[in-house]
Order: sequence, then structure tokens, then C-alpha cells
Amino acid sequence: MRLAELSRRSGVPTATIKYYLREGLLPPGRRVTATQSEYDDAHLERLRLVRALVQVGRVPIASARDVLTALEDDSLDHNSRLGTAVGALPHGPESAEDDASDAQARRTVDVLLARLGWQYAQSHKEEFPAYRMLVTAVATLARLGYPCAVEDLAPYAHAGGQLAESDLDLIERYESPDRQLEAAVALTVLYEPVLLSLRRIAQAEESHHRFGEQRAGE
Amino acid sequence: MRLAELSRRSGVPTATIKYYLREGLLPPGRRVTATQSEYDDAHLERLRLVRALVQVGRVPIASARDVLTALEDDSLDHNSRLGTAVGALPHGPESAEDDASDAQARRTVDVLLARLGWQYAQSHKEEFPAYRMLVTAVATLARLGYPCAVEDLAPYAHAGGQLAESDLDLIERYESPDRQLEAAVALTVLYEPVLLSLRRIAQAEESHHRFGEQRAGE
Repeated sequence: MRLAELSRRSGVPTATIKYYLREGLLPPGRRVTATQSEYDDAHLERLRLVRALVQVGRVPIASARDVLTALEDDSLDHNSRLGTAVGALPHGPESAEDDASDAQARRTVDVLLARLGWQYAQSHKEEFPAYRMLVTAVATLARLGYPCAVEDLAPYAHAGGQLAESDLDLIERYESPDRQLEAAVALTVLYEPVLLSLRRIAQAEESHHRFGEQRAGE
Repeated sequence: MRLAELSRRSGVPTATIKYYLREGLLPPGRRVTATQSEYDDAHLERLRLVRALVQVGRVPIASARDVLTALEDDSLDHNSRLGTAVGALPHGPESAEDDASDAQARRTVDVLLARLGWQYAQSHKEEFPAYRMLVTAVATLARLGYPCAVEDLAPYAHAGGQLAESDLDLIERYESPDRQLEAAVALTVLYEPVLLSLRRIAQAEESHHRFGEQRAGE
């Protein structure tokens, strides 16, 4: 298909598609004339993923390119490619503050991972941006004086473990390894607002049950 | 205490404190001379919350002011103040696209809430920014062709319900209603990166168990 049809079928304006092509987020089409290229269904799929990352997930262009590069790295096996691609997703702000609370937070997180028995995560933690994101989040809680002991974090870790099972169940619905990789990246990003909004709605529900209506019936 | 001591004890630079005072994120101190004011522990507490929202949660100043205003609204009961304050936290991007997928997403979310038996959330959903955030997220998944049926969302809702219980358990450790409100807002924001990073670490762990090492032992 030509650019105009790619735009129509994807719902992405041609100017945006050209921008993605220039930035290397979309592989070039097959050149048919000096000014026209031919695109295929792989381009359509890739556009879908780029939209999930850039428009919805607000992933910066450079990070999106890293994620997409990892997806195509044939030197890695399936699991490594999945881990590298999801790992290249941007994480929260890095700590710029004192190292003492970071060191303490690191110890807390390490005890947590050990108690959970997440051996793969323990032995690969230095490669995980998510590990640094967690250490930074725990150090921030500590500096601001909010609860962040191993026991406080444990329920969130158990929820994370259950969510990962749901995530992988969704991903395994896709048959080809390439589609699984694409789905892993997209669903990691796209389900974050689902999860955070459901947590807030559940908080309102739970708060109502605990504090609401001054227990009118009593 | 004077401004210099408030700065030293909070770790927030005096210029930043003055900015928060100008923006109404911090109530004015008690004027003692034409150029000096006196601050107390309530200011120190409030600064902690402002940092959690603005520096860590990256909440825009105007939204932070709405949250803080709701915390102090004496016309509301405890549960309503809590709901209004957490509800004033900014949510994800609003949908700017077609209404057909939004209407379908709304139906999906409504069926989900009904199945969960979250009656308070159902009857107050129009007041919840989190409800609109969820509808937008589901509509986006649908538009991009990713799974988002009620059954797909259910595990995330169950996780949200469990997380809300953990959240409220943390909040109930604080004795005064005012501290509970402050903690509800701060912990909602500060535990988001904890949850998201633990989900990603758990994904890596789960992915390793399902796909890793080509099941070397077989």
C-alpha cells in the first residue's frame, strides 16, 4: 500500500508517519519510484505499537527507538529480547539525592526480592531499569518519612506477581514470537493506566466501606 | 521557626518554599516583623506532602492546589474529603478520539464494576477522574486492537481491590483524620512507581519461567 492508504488504515496522519520514518521508528518502505514507497502489513503493525508507546505511553522518541531496536535484535533469544525491550521502556525519575537513603532502600528491596524467591530478578537486577526505579521510589518514601519497610512493600509485590501472570497470559495469546514481543511492550504500557485507575476506584470503594456514612446503620 | 530553619529541616531550598507560598501550596506563616514570618510543624508536614506531589509525583501546581484545597474543606465529611482530594489528582490523557469506542469502553467498564459489586464506585463514577481515565485506557486498547474485554480487565481489577486494602491499611496507621488525608494523597502518588516497577520485575521473573533457557532440563 502507498503512504496515503497506510495513513487511512492506521488513522495516523501522513505527516506523523513521515516523522516516524525520519526518526527511525518505522522501517522505510520498498521504494517503487523516486518519490513513492510501498508499505505492507508489518508497517501497519509497527505503527500500532509506535502509537501505543509514543501517543499513549508518552515514551520519548529516543526511548521508543531503543525499545524497537531491542525487538529486532536477532542476536538475543526470545526471553532476552522481551526483557531488553520492556527494560528499555523509560522509568521514573532517578534519585539525585543522598546515597545513604539509596543504600538503605537497596537493602530493603534486596530483602524483599529474596523473600519473594524471585531468583532471576535477583541475579539480573542490575540490568533492570525497574530495579533502579523501585530503589528510587523506596528511598523517596523513606526520605519523606512514609512507611516503606519490607512488610509494607510485600502486598504490592504480591500484586505485581499476580499482574505479571495476567500480563503473560495475555501475551501468550499471540502465536508468533514477534507478535508476543510487540504485545509485551504495548500491553506493559497500555495496562498501566488501567491498573492505576482501578486502584483509585477501589480505594474510593474501600474508603467508603471503612469510613463512609459514619456507619449509618449502627 | 523562621524560613531558614524550615528550609533546613525540610531540605527544601528557601527560594522553593517562597515559590510554594506565592502559589498558595503552603499557608502563610504568622507575621512577626515586616519581613519575617514564623512557621510551625504544620508547615513542615505540608511541605512534605507538597514535595511528594510536585517533585516526585510531578503533579502540576494547579492540580496540587486543588488537592490541598480539598484536604482543608471543612464542609465535607472525612470520606468525602478523602475522595475529593485523591480525585483531584491528575489523571491520564483524556480521549480526544471518536465517541463510538468510548461508548463501548464505558459499557465494558460498567459491566466490570457491576460484576465486582463495587456499588459505591458505580453510583459515584461520574465524579471520579479515575473512571474517565479507565474508560479512556480501555477505548485506546480497543482502538489499537489489543485485548480489553471484561474478562481481560478482571485480574487487574482484583489486583486493584487488594491494593486498595493495603493502601487503606497503611493510611489507618495514622491516627488523626487530617494525617490520614495527607497520607492518602501522598501514598497514592508515591506507591505508583513502587507498584509499576514491581510489576515489571515480576514480568521478567515470570517471563523467565515461561520462556527462559529453552527449558534446559528437558
